Amino acid sequence: MQRYFIPEHYWNSDKVFITEDNAHHIIRVMRKKIGDEIICNHPNGEAAICTITQLTKAEVHTKITKWLEDNAELPVQVTIAQGLPKGNKLELIFQKGTELGADEFWLFQADRSIAKWEQKKAVQKIKRYEKIIKEASEQCHRNIVPNLKETGTIEELLEDSRHYHLRLFAYEEEARTNAYSSLSDALQTGKPNDKVIVFIGPEGGFSNEEVELLKANKCKPVRLGRRILRTETASMYLLASISYHFEELRCKE
Amino acid sequence: MQRYFIPEHYWNSDKVFITEDNAHHIIRVMRKKIGDEIICNHPNGEAAICTITQLTKAEVHTKITKWLEDNAELPVQVTIAQGLPKGNKLELIFQKGTELGADEFWLFQADRSIAKWEQKKAVQKIKRYEKIIKEASEQCHRNIVPNLKETGTIEELLEDSRHYHLRLFAYEEEARTNAYSSLSDALQTGKPNDKVIVFIGPEGGFSNEEVELLKANKCKPVRLGRRILRTETASMYLLASISYHFEELRCKE
Repeated sequence: MQRYFIPEHYWNSDKVFITEDNAHHIIRVMRKKIGDEIICNHPNGEAAICTITQLTKAEVHTKITKWLEDNAELPVQVTIAQGLPKGNKLELIFQKGTELGADEFWLFQADRSIAKWEQKKAVQKIKRYEKIIKEASEQCHRNIVPNLKETGTIEELLEDSRHYHLRLFAYEEEARTNAYSSLSDALQTGKPNDKVIVFIGPEGGFSNEEVELLKANKCKPVRLGRRILRTETASMYLLASISYHFEELRCKE
Repeated sequence: MQRYFIPEHYWNSDKVFITEDNAHHIIRVMRKKIGDEIICNHPNGEAAICTITQLTKAEVHTKITKWLEDNAELPVQVTIAQGLPKGNKLELIFQKGTELGADEFWLFQADRSIAKWEQKKAVQKIKRYEKIIKEASEQCHRNIVPNLKETGTIEELLEDSRHYHLRLFAYEEEARTNAYSSLSDALQTGKPNDKVIVFIGPEGGFSNEEVELLKANKCKPVRLGRRILRTETASMYLLASISYHFEELRCKE
């Protein structure tokens, strides 16, 4: 059943009112009729099966039929702090990161970022990225839509994540040594509802200064397997491993 | 240091001879000079640092300086058996799958595949895909270039993987139940050098007939976290989890 994220002010006791892109999708793309059912997600993470009671050209009226108790969120809340990459890699990072359970995406202008964040194009860009994140959330039945924060400096992101339980950074130099930090040692300290942040460098990785800054702020370097991953693949590896660790793994006693 | 996969017949005792695309890359893109070093990979998985001794317009002569002992291969050999997806998703599946350590890619025409494998375009397509796989292998410092097998039926792929140690299939229905098969239970039966195959459905997943066929052939259904993944994301999740399990995980005693 198709799922839609509906802003809070469109919920009214047992009714949900749907407009704009969501309504367009229901009426024109899915060609739903009165009596058909959809799933509506409330911004608080709750979701309900709703029956369509009225359709106009651009609006859909529904009645809540049944509240759902499903939960598709990762047991820990993962923020991906991504060094600004080249080209359209961010679209892939946001789409796949959302599917794989990220809670928030933060961006930073890294020392080796070739791309520059242009403030005058920012509003339009953020809008497009938020659309990608919302559609991916609907597709993979997330309970929430991950939050996207505009760019900052790595210092600002470190400050904003000061209260996080676990702070990691992907450091490919670790992949080349035997004395590497173990991602699993770090994850094994995690508990449900912990907030986790992972800093990922752009193409070319972190500068020495950034590595020192991350270490000075007690962020743990981790390697992501034995291969050198592209910047856009690092968040996928991390989120899949975190899902595997907390949702699928049962260590032998 | 840039890495190149060189066919066997270009290796001659302590010399490696380089032509075509690889030579073009060394001469025109990297603008290497005599005395510069590159890494050459032999098809058997071994690799050596080679010093350039002679350059012509289209050929590079090198001398082996030092054999390397690095190994970037997953401890188990993973074959991704992918139901033919739509559009250009295969390019992403091959690039990311190579980065994440896949050993082979097999394709099959699934019941719900909307795309059809056109035999007259196959040669050209396979050539492009093999180029993507080779470049990704070089980028992420793999010891081998994953093999790509042309399409077959699911029955043929089941027959060809009869000798594999572990056969799994990604089954999204499992993600919706509490009585799901655990990927980690399956992986915990794996030993180094085991051959593992994972069948992944196209958009829309496997048909009921395919699920019955896979189960009848003792393939184990596994879920990939609690979210519904797109077809191109499933292999990324699986390979990252397999890397995490065999390369990064240390279960608490």
